Amino acid sequence: MLPTAPMLLTPGPLTTSARTRQAMLVDWGSWDERFNQLTASVRARLLAIIHGADSHHCVPLQGSGTFAVEAAIGTLVPRDGKVLVLINGAYGKRLAKICEVLGRAFSTFATAEDEPTTAADVDRLLHADPSISHVALIHCETSTGILNPLPAIAQVVKSHGKRLIVDAMSSFGALPIDAREVPFDALIAASGKCLEGVPGMGFVFLDKQALAAAQGNCHSLAMDLFEQHRYMAETGQWRFTPPTHVVAALHEALLQYHEEGGQPARHQRYAHNCQTLLEGMAELGLRSFLPAAIQAPIIVTFHAPQHSRYQFKEFYERVKAKGFILYPGKLTQVETFRVGCIGHVDATDMRAAVTSIAQVLRAMDIPLLSASGVPA
Amino acid sequence: MLPTAPMLLTPGPLTTSARTRQAMLVDWGSWDERFNQLTASVRARLLAIIHGADSHHCVPLQGSGTFAVEAAIGTLVPRDGKVLVLINGAYGKRLAKICEVLGRAFSTFATAEDEPTTAADVDRLLHADPSISHVALIHCETSTGILNPLPAIAQVVKSHGKRLIVDAMSSFGALPIDAREVPFDALIAASGKCLEGVPGMGFVFLDKQALAAAQGNCHSLAMDLFEQHRYMAETGQWRFTPPTHVVAALHEALLQYHEEGGQPARHQRYAHNCQTLLEGMAELGLRSFLPAAIQAPIIVTFHAPQHSRYQFKEFYERVKAKGFILYPGKLTQVETFRVGCIGHVDATDMRAAVTSIAQVLRAMDIPLLSASGVPA
Ligand SMILES: Cc1ncc(COP(=O)(O)O)c(C=O)c1O
Ligand SMILES: Cc1ncc(COP(=O)(O)O)c(C=O)c1O
Repeated sequence: MLPTAPMLLTPGPLTTSARTRQAMLVDWGSWDERFNQLTASVRARLLAIIHGADSHHCVPLQGSGTFAVEAAIGTLVPRDGKVLVLINGAYGKRLAKICEVLGRAFSTFATAEDEPTTAADVDRLLHADPSISHVALIHCETSTGILNPLPAIAQVVKSHGKRLIVDAMSSFGALPIDAREVPFDALIAASGKCLEGVPGMGFVFLDKQALAAAQGNCHSLAMDLFEQHRYMAETGQWRFTPPTHVVAALHEALLQYHEEGGQPARHQRYAHNCQTLLEGMAELGLRSFLPAAIQAPIIVTFHAPQHSRYQFKEFYERVKAKGFILYPGKLTQVETFRVGCIGHVDATDMRAAVTSIAQVLRAMDIPLLSASGVPA
Repeated sequence: MLPTAPMLLTPGPLTTSARTRQAMLVDWGSWDERFNQLTASVRARLLAIIHGADSHHCVPLQGSGTFAVEAAIGTLVPRDGKVLVLINGAYGKRLAKICEVLGRAFSTFATAEDEPTTAADVDRLLHADPSISHVALIHCETSTGILNPLPAIAQVVKSHGKRLIVDAMSSFGALPIDAREVPFDALIAASGKCLEGVPGMGFVFLDKQALAAAQGNCHSLAMDLFEQHRYMAETGQWRFTPPTHVVAALHEALLQYHEEGGQPARHQRYAHNCQTLLEGMAELGLRSFLPAAIQAPIIVTFHAPQHSRYQFKEFYERVKAKGFILYPGKLTQVETFRVGCIGHVDATDMRAAVTSIAQVLRAMDIPLLSASGVPA
């Protein structure tokens, strides 16, 4: 790592360990047995995280996370299906956009960006429209960091005999998801998020029966997860050239994930990062947008300082010069910025980031408030 | 690089330089200005290779090469268009399959796997069917290594007022392609081929006017090159999370490409690799499938030794143990294997590979023939 490379406090790509990056120093033949073993190991380790080996297949896909989301919808929703899309942020809106572009019928249900969708909402909506075949949900809506109640919604969807597609991009690996208890047809995530790999591939956990029934649904050759899985099951290889170095990095990241203690340990570290961040920022008088009860320990949205000298761009550049890359806000109504809690970072890093933010605000001559609103 | 990692004599992923792989040791923020500059530099350098800055945009896309091919067809061919697909191998067949899945009308014209499509063929076919709007061609058909006459075909397509889509996956960067002289609407390649980057992204050179007219054509959200380009033009960023480390590796590979002397130097090294390979193998009595005149210096298909003790699997494993990964054949009628000439390898490596192949065939007790057919 160059000495100047700043730490990424962003929701992915994020800071990875040197060991993970060093796994990319080898070239792999994509046809070779050793690479096939690497792929098989990655898939098995991913399935183990959700206890899904009996019920689900893990199908990796080249491209960013959105490619995997589109592939899941395109592969699972038949041409005459109808999707209920639950929205409280930008990624929920993207689910609806995907349905629109793919020509799948859909309806949307939107709540405010600081309001989780409830199981009762879904129950009511499914009662009201029996033509709905699938429900699509964002687990942690990264545009704010809000957590939606996946287990309760999954039970309601199942009780109606409908199918659930979950975008768990920014939560998978950190928040607990147990396929033995939470019924879903598809759950989507990617290499460069809480598993702390590098970006370049997504993966979808697909209910075995739902996948078996999905032949011919897909609108795309490259994104057809039925064919992707069939080819991989038959040959052990990816259907099209895999991002070999990204796969090798993910494999190495998964070994470290296991060594750290798996999902509970990852969750604990991120929760500790998030708590440290929230406390430190509160001392500076920087308020988080979401109440604690619905804040996932993934990324935190902060209200920007309300001061004429505050400009995100300058703030960002100055904090970056101190070694931390922050993330812009994604809300339209209020001015915010975001700080990620995920990646190869710990509470000491979060404290150092808060210290840098405090120094920068002082240098910008923006008064810091104490938690009580009194200038510190 | 692990001391045991074999050299890849495959058509991508291939052997990269240590410097290219080391560029992946840094984590990049995908929202950060420095990464935007990296992306802009990659795009400009790619455009310069085809002298296309005036006429074309370079639009990168996450995923393998096939994703970029599908994206080009989906974005450029309107829903009521019709594609003439020229086929002399597996990748040509894949073009037709893409049209089929995307629901674009198409017709095919197939020649034998050792027979290039001619401009006269295309002229005749376009005369016969005025409903054709686009012609799709593989430049170097990697299933055998055959070269199709791109410049002549491009002129004929243009003279009919039709549009050309070229899959130049395995030739771009090594074989000369000049956008000022060869008219095309799209030309597609990827990071992990003759540019000697790592796999994980493709890119498409798109005629500026053709792209401007392509809004709303695409069947996919993630693969829509019109939107991909619009977003990048507006923000300097990728629309969805880029494979940051793959982009960084490609940038480093492009610097080395330039230092080596660009396309003419790359072509020369590969041609020398190919010549060295062909001569060495001929001395062992191993015949190439294609005549020299239509053999691209990218990958060579060899007839397998006709001997009962020859099994590709054993042959492959033994050659690999000596440090070289070969590639299986892709022909159905004749038993063949393939050897790539591309990647960070030179004529000395090719000679060493031939020596290893000779040793392995001797160890397998398969008689080597002299070029004249007499046992050596
Ligand atoms: C919840 C969620 N869904 C989808 C995506 C899209 O992933 P990508 O940018 O890799 O396409 C993200 C990215 O952060 C995300 O957080
Ligand atoms: C001519 C050609 N087209 C398309 C492809 C497909 O690329 P990918 O395997 O990266 O999807 C290849 C791969 O070698 C190729 O050689």
